[in-house]
Amino acid sequence: MSGATTARRRVLRVAVGGAAEPRADLLAVEEPLEIRVDGEPLTVTMRTPGDDIDLAAGFLFTEGLLTRLDDVHEIRRCDENVAAVTLKQGRTLAGRPGSGRNFLTTSACGVCGKDSIEAIRTRSAFDLAADPVRVSPAMLAGLPGRLRDAQRVFSRTGGLHAAGLFRPDGTLLVLREDVGRHNAVDKVAGWALRAGRLPLAGHILLVSGRASFELAQKAIMIGVPVLAAVSAPSSLAAALAEDGGLTLVGFLRGSMMNVYAGAQRVTAEDVPASVPARV
Amino acid sequence: MSGATTARRRVLRVAVGGAAEPRADLLAVEEPLEIRVDGEPLTVTMRTPGDDIDLAAGFLFTEGLLTRLDDVHEIRRCDENVAAVTLKQGRTLAGRPGSGRNFLTTSACGVCGKDSIEAIRTRSAFDLAADPVRVSPAMLAGLPGRLRDAQRVFSRTGGLHAAGLFRPDGTLLVLREDVGRHNAVDKVAGWALRAGRLPLAGHILLVSGRASFELAQKAIMIGVPVLAAVSAPSSLAAALAEDGGLTLVGFLRGSMMNVYAGAQRVTAEDVPASVPARV
Repeated sequence: MSGATTARRRVLRVAVGGAAEPRADLLAVEEPLEIRVDGEPLTVTMRTPGDDIDLAAGFLFTEGLLTRLDDVHEIRRCDENVAAVTLKQGRTLAGRPGSGRNFLTTSACGVCGKDSIEAIRTRSAFDLAADPVRVSPAMLAGLPGRLRDAQRVFSRTGGLHAAGLFRPDGTLLVLREDVGRHNAVDKVAGWALRAGRLPLAGHILLVSGRASFELAQKAIMIGVPVLAAVSAPSSLAAALAEDGGLTLVGFLRGSMMNVYAGAQRVTAEDVPASVPARV
Repeated sequence: MSGATTARRRVLRVAVGGAAEPRADLLAVEEPLEIRVDGEPLTVTMRTPGDDIDLAAGFLFTEGLLTRLDDVHEIRRCDENVAAVTLKQGRTLAGRPGSGRNFLTTSACGVCGKDSIEAIRTRSAFDLAADPVRVSPAMLAGLPGRLRDAQRVFSRTGGLHAAGLFRPDGTLLVLREDVGRHNAVDKVAGWALRAGRLPLAGHILLVSGRASFELAQKAIMIGVPVLAAVSAPSSLAAALAEDGGLTLVGFLRGSMMNVYAGAQRVTAEDVPASVPARV
């Protein structure tokens, strides 16, 4: 369990009406990571070990608890499953997390999708709507294949979500994997934050599964203008994307894709300037 | 957004090198649900509206915060996105949630997979290891098809996870869907709790995606002896299943499946009594 992303396990492969064969299988490792800030436990997330410093930094930033890396004195792993964040003297977090799965949402007054969207708008430091990047359907269609090619671990376990950050020309900049899709995105976010690359203007973030509100939130918080998902987005992810100036692409498979928000960035030959009011 | 599980949205269907066509798409609805206990906000979860009372009850129970339904005076929706739980006079929750995604894990002293497993063992009221139920590969192989047939919503959006509870003979007892797989399982758990059906001895819980530690935890908390998943389990889900006497089946597809723990319940012709120590 010491930092490996896969673990060997004995399983029984069973066929209907046939033999049951013992064999070895590789599973995606899942272990808790406690994030501590100035010695106080802040949260525990179930994650795949690896890039834990990035995960801690990315989590704090995309949840709006940390607004700039300059507030941080140090982040280190003080145990296999503990990431300890030390802030500079006199600095504090921008908020305390609620007890919910989604911290920003919890801190909204009142509870509805609209409040959740408003909370993100208030907290994000970046204005995605101003990002002039344009992306072509052909470039987008090539991304899932590049992500899969880079996912060596995925092909071995089938159990890991992936998040890939691409340059405007479709070059893969960084790939992160995790049993939790939010963690994979936080690992990318933390990497970019620590590398001084925020906001991620002009970039494309691709996730291997579905696009939830939480993933759209994280994309907006790091200033990435295009979020693409291999599967479906949720209603609130689409609403947040539209409100936050994020281009949201879903069902990106083969040569086809759906654009749910921010269609002005997609350079198809005959794309209307915006999705029409009626279809 | 008033309780519907799908929302119509205008999207642009784009093909590489071809036309971009506006069309209507149905998205899975995602909205926050705040769970309040005796007037105090406890948590917010992003969920698909529907079965919110079951979701609140199931969440509290599978997280070990509520140990018996008899402590509850009433659960009602006091708003579209608020489930208000009122305990009977003098009753309290069995714990307060931490700020993590996984409450039981957070409350473990020390943070590692072993502590997480130990925390579940301490909290679960039911002894799964004593459940004598046997399941055949043929019966198990038939479950995903039954789940899919019952998932009318899924076929329309591609965005919802499903959890199905089956009787030992493979009959579907209840199906719940959600954008969050943990919520789908909590909806099943809450339904069973409120129907007086716990522990779910002899039953099989099938989930449409992967099996994480959290899902294995929830299965153990409601006393269901068999957890089957269409995709991969994580390392910690398998370890928890083994420790907790839970039969864990993964990659249940077509006529094949992997048994990760509790193989003694699978009645294949030539199944060893247990998965051998070496393969």
